[in-house]
Amino acid sequence: MKALVYITPKADILDPQGKAVGSALQDLGYEGVDEVKVGRYVTLQLKSQPVDQAKAQVEDMCRKLLANINVETFRVEITED
Amino acid sequence: MKALVYITPKADILDPQGKAVGSALQDLGYEGVDEVKVGRYVTLQLKSQPVDQAKAQVEDMCRKLLANINVETFRVEITED
Repeated sequence: MKALVYITPKADILDPQGKAVGSALQDLGYEGVDEVKVGRYVTLQLKSQPVDQAKAQVEDMCRKLLANINVETFRVEITED
Repeated sequence: MKALVYITPKADILDPQGKAVGSALQDLGYEGVDEVKVGRYVTLQLKSQPVDQAKAQVEDMCRKLLANINVETFRVEITED
């Protein structure tokens, strides 16, 4: 089974990377792009276990290592792939 | 409307950041984690437009700027949020 982790900068936190990408898109001529946020997408291949248990474990990993919970939020999805 | 972009290292490409996270998780005592891949999760706030058109435009942005298509793959989702 697999865990998909989506980590994004919190809404009220400055995201310089997102700002840079937004302005580069404008320079390339793309219009109508309002706000860009750049986060991380982490996938983990896990050994088979109950979904609830896997989710709790990966959320724990996020709090301890994968995300910086002061400035980032995370969401965990477990799939059976 | 919003575009969600998932960018991941290609399967056969070395992902040093993923390896580092995998080994840090092991050091923290997490077991049963086989493979970790670290990619990027980019969200773009777009002006209202037909979904097909938005998707094509964002895929174009991925090829030109957001992803390095030599070593990364990307997937674009459009939501009405």
